[in-house]
Amino acid sequence: MTTLISEHASFGGVQRFYQHDSSAIGLPMRFSVYLPPGHEGKRLPVLFYLAGLTCTEETFAIKAGAQRVAAELGLIVVAPDTSPRGAGVPGESESWDFGVGAGFYLDATAEPWARHYRMASYILELRELVLREFGADEARCGIFGHSMGGHGALVLALRHPDLFRSVSAFAPIAAPSRCPWGEKAFGGYLGTDRSSWAAWDATELVSQGAVRFPAGILVDQGLADKFLPDQLNPHLFEEACRVAGQPLTLRRHEGYDHGYYFIASFVEDHLRFHAGQLG
Amino acid sequence: MTTLISEHASFGGVQRFYQHDSSAIGLPMRFSVYLPPGHEGKRLPVLFYLAGLTCTEETFAIKAGAQRVAAELGLIVVAPDTSPRGAGVPGESESWDFGVGAGFYLDATAEPWARHYRMASYILELRELVLREFGADEARCGIFGHSMGGHGALVLALRHPDLFRSVSAFAPIAAPSRCPWGEKAFGGYLGTDRSSWAAWDATELVSQGAVRFPAGILVDQGLADKFLPDQLNPHLFEEACRVAGQPLTLRRHEGYDHGYYFIASFVEDHLRFHAGQLG
Repeated sequence: MTTLISEHASFGGVQRFYQHDSSAIGLPMRFSVYLPPGHEGKRLPVLFYLAGLTCTEETFAIKAGAQRVAAELGLIVVAPDTSPRGAGVPGESESWDFGVGAGFYLDATAEPWARHYRMASYILELRELVLREFGADEARCGIFGHSMGGHGALVLALRHPDLFRSVSAFAPIAAPSRCPWGEKAFGGYLGTDRSSWAAWDATELVSQGAVRFPAGILVDQGLADKFLPDQLNPHLFEEACRVAGQPLTLRRHEGYDHGYYFIASFVEDHLRFHAGQLG
Repeated sequence: MTTLISEHASFGGVQRFYQHDSSAIGLPMRFSVYLPPGHEGKRLPVLFYLAGLTCTEETFAIKAGAQRVAAELGLIVVAPDTSPRGAGVPGESESWDFGVGAGFYLDATAEPWARHYRMASYILELRELVLREFGADEARCGIFGHSMGGHGALVLALRHPDLFRSVSAFAPIAAPSRCPWGEKAFGGYLGTDRSSWAAWDATELVSQGAVRFPAGILVDQGLADKFLPDQLNPHLFEEACRVAGQPLTLRRHEGYDHGYYFIASFVEDHLRFHAGQLG
């Protein structure tokens, strides 16, 4: 059952927060939905936004300022939480970059994480829920995200280009197999056999496969982002796209950092990018 | 000394947070400043935003989404904290609607509040600081705010129409002498002699004086605001304006509540209202 927690009128539409029992996670999960004005009875396109480390289903709704543009474009925008909550795995709350608030949008295979930490399957479950309960258009789903969620958006889109027809990212962890955040998360959730990591690494996925987004991928990156030198590696993703022939617009922005002031400054471009591709 | 705490590129300008030693308060105070692109070397108009109960100098910058419009219009936007911090008055943190986070933008006269709880004088001090340190245009200062801060904006503008040339509010506590929040705050900060309260009550000030804003005052109020029935009383301010001949645009918005989803939906209108009056 999907339970409405709260709702707030916003730009003529409504910003809602829900809780439901997730079968993929095996626990209650929360998500936010922005429904634009006039959504009733229409099959609207929907964008899934995946947030970064330590965030929740509220972060994007509160900080990004996307509702104005979603209202104008007639887009539903959905944001899930960033991990299971209450799984009770020992030590799951000890790190800010692993465990609670840091699910990395993959399905864990290593113990003790494999039972609940299944955020990749959860996003697909949430997509089905949104199509069913909010009347979103199955053929017009896009996905985007920030940092850990930018990684998640790129990976889920590259794994399921039939389900997500447009993809973009803000400051994504673009090659997680080759940075400290990714090595810690993949080592914990997937185990030390690195051959299993490639299936969850956007740079590896682009390198392996056919061109899945011929209309292009959009990535924005701030050049004053303190995580850029060690964690994000957009240049590796850029090079992989170039070799694979995957069109990519990677915009580097002087002076912008890793936070939501950066995201808010460019979120309108992302919504228009998706709306243009989803029609 | 004004110390920069942090800064974030935002819509081509910069969102900054500062701390300084306030002479009015006698303690360090924090405030935020948004500087639009191309602000260097220009005398720009400046808007002061006063936040509501429990908020800080960060709330408006994070939640309102005003930077986009401020960037377009070339407005500096300043937001102070909502009370002294660290005054050490016994019991000052026991209530969410009195004491810390609830300074009510007046100068306390009753003990033990009179020494530090001087937010009205502080706003004037901050105005001087902003004119001096950020090159804002002394002749083009406006003020607006939300809830307790809507009260503060109306009162400070009505007391100092020479210093603030435009004024607007979101869901202000429009007649604080006649609602529980105001009675608690004024009774505590000003004492039980109600004759002293009128000088800090927007409805009383409009009733007493000449028309101070001939170009009009803008107020937005959500009709799903849970505080509307008991605390806000915009109809009393509306009636006082009508009797006094003070032009007022009071917009009542079906479905909107008391929070920042409401503010974000209409903040662009407020910035354009002020820019239009400040030239």
